[in-house]
Amino acid sequence: MKVRQIVKELDSYVPGRSQDEIANQFNLNKEDIIKLGSNENPWGSSKRAIEAVKKNLDLSFRYPETDLKELKLLIADYCNLNLENIIIGGDGADEIIDILAKTFMDVGDEFITPLPTYTYYEFTFKPYGAIPVYAKWDLKTNSLDVNSVLNNITDKTKMIFLCTPNNPTGGVISKEDIEKIINSTDALIVIDEAYIEYTGNTLSNIDLIEKYSNVFIMRTMSKVLGLAGMRVGYGMSNPQLIEYMHRIKPVFSLTRASQVAAVETFKDKLFIKESTVKGIESRDFLYNQLSRFKNLNVFNSSSNYIFVGIKDTGFTAKEFTYKLMEKGVIIRDCTSFKGLDEYWIRISIGTMKDDEKFIEILHEIIE
Amino acid sequence: MKVRQIVKELDSYVPGRSQDEIANQFNLNKEDIIKLGSNENPWGSSKRAIEAVKKNLDLSFRYPETDLKELKLLIADYCNLNLENIIIGGDGADEIIDILAKTFMDVGDEFITPLPTYTYYEFTFKPYGAIPVYAKWDLKTNSLDVNSVLNNITDKTKMIFLCTPNNPTGGVISKEDIEKIINSTDALIVIDEAYIEYTGNTLSNIDLIEKYSNVFIMRTMSKVLGLAGMRVGYGMSNPQLIEYMHRIKPVFSLTRASQVAAVETFKDKLFIKESTVKGIESRDFLYNQLSRFKNLNVFNSSSNYIFVGIKDTGFTAKEFTYKLMEKGVIIRDCTSFKGLDEYWIRISIGTMKDDEKFIEILHEIIE
Repeated sequence: MKVRQIVKELDSYVPGRSQDEIANQFNLNKEDIIKLGSNENPWGSSKRAIEAVKKNLDLSFRYPETDLKELKLLIADYCNLNLENIIIGGDGADEIIDILAKTFMDVGDEFITPLPTYTYYEFTFKPYGAIPVYAKWDLKTNSLDVNSVLNNITDKTKMIFLCTPNNPTGGVISKEDIEKIINSTDALIVIDEAYIEYTGNTLSNIDLIEKYSNVFIMRTMSKVLGLAGMRVGYGMSNPQLIEYMHRIKPVFSLTRASQVAAVETFKDKLFIKESTVKGIESRDFLYNQLSRFKNLNVFNSSSNYIFVGIKDTGFTAKEFTYKLMEKGVIIRDCTSFKGLDEYWIRISIGTMKDDEKFIEILHEIIE
Repeated sequence: MKVRQIVKELDSYVPGRSQDEIANQFNLNKEDIIKLGSNENPWGSSKRAIEAVKKNLDLSFRYPETDLKELKLLIADYCNLNLENIIIGGDGADEIIDILAKTFMDVGDEFITPLPTYTYYEFTFKPYGAIPVYAKWDLKTNSLDVNSVLNNITDKTKMIFLCTPNNPTGGVISKEDIEKIINSTDALIVIDEAYIEYTGNTLSNIDLIEKYSNVFIMRTMSKVLGLAGMRVGYGMSNPQLIEYMHRIKPVFSLTRASQVAAVETFKDKLFIKESTVKGIESRDFLYNQLSRFKNLNVFNSSSNYIFVGIKDTGFTAKEFTYKLMEKGVIIRDCTSFKGLDEYWIRISIGTMKDDEKFIEILHEIIE
């Protein structure tokens, strides 16, 4: 019995730790922990969505429906597209990334991903034998180094990932730069708009789907839409590409509960609007407060998190996050993001109460 | 932009039809439709599980926990194994199948699957460039033709799928035959025990995990455990193999709701016991009733469905299922199972009321 060489070369599996274990270790009440680590919507899910799920749970013994027509139509409406432009992911956008790999990547094909950016592209693509080629996110300007993408395009390049706003840095990629890349290759340009609502919805690239044949846009319901625990994502492109992806997509991967929650969330326009407005307020508040600390290198952000360099504090990100954890705050140590050294952290927005408490605690650690 | 050749060669995607569409077409009340098509637990989910999910839904905006320790321990207890033997699938057993492919199959590697059997193995493995090699399920004896497996083993064989009880035929594979296969190869023997509870729990092969290094057992919560809509599956093998699979497993694929439902279902031992007993009763009732129709070729079954040849009725399976649908009954047309002609159907167990109504309706169609 032989596992693939590529699997042997991957890092060993270390199980994550449960919230209970963390609470125990630091002697904290689970309920008092302030979670600013995973870029969720801190005000919760749409109440309308939760109520609808409750009413549907008695059908949990039945397989989910597979056409997802109602949900696709709502997404099409939300994004000004048609049903044929939409594919739904049953494990958030992560499943969409996996389907992209299955549809496009043969062993030895290359994909370009700037560093630092969302690490799950590479995690998902490597087992397919696809080769990562690294471009550069310019930390000085918090923007994509477009030439580092263009210069790395070869005839083996099958896909280019552009995350805008970029995770974890929070900067956006201009449409001009995106079109420059699109026009330089026939590789598929995958634009990850997981956080696009936090730009005030002014910076989406959906219009490029009609304009070019090699554009794919990826979204998730885990952020402003408040359904991280329900694992719903979606992708958008031209109908031909979407049809190809459907050929190999898992048939039942979206749970019944997730489907109902997703449908009702898209209908709850007030919830989406308020979540967006409050999220932007919280981000701006955090940005202003953090900027007052003289030892923090605070990045501008168009998203629901703030990227911060902490080298001048004298702490590593590991030490820094540990100190905050002791006081009941979870933030993200960015050391595991390829392309970063050990002095970067990412802070997700919280409710105003969370934010204020967090800033208070931060004052106990640094000046 | 080029999709992979292998994707171009797959069948085009035809969206499934929603239950509403079917109800509309046949002018039926959705609630009155008798569903005997998908091998679900017709008595529903554990009530305790549903109540627990309701209480947890307010946390749907948070990412799921990833260690799944509590669930793994409960499964280990249910199966007499240890936590290190367990991996959880977030899209039922279908995700487990996908992880198996990612862990073991390089392009050109072979896997053996008897015909007819569960079709999702092949659906999932083909995009990885793996080559299906077909063995034979003997319809005359409703048992595996072991020699057809043994004779097809080559040095390219990486995996052998053995579904017991076999879907769609309902027969089991003897432990003797399974061990004969295990001892003939170092390929991984994947034993799909999705329906094992319906054998009265006497025919599991879990003991083989300790005895051999090349055994993997796959299960689902979609059948007797009543959670098809929640998409939970699990796999069991030696700790080394399970660790390899965890390296590439999607991190967040099990939703929060599914996790809670799964945990409470395994705690609800009375529910599991009653579902099993009632399921076996329903199967035996259906078998006896169906056997009275002189034109039906009714197969013995150790599962929660009955496999039936209908050639002597003069109808094809497509015609037969259409006639039942018109009268509000959904069963499975087996024509799409490779290795079968167009004269086979599969009937899932229903509640006693469903079963009686179905037999009544059947009398209106055939004698």
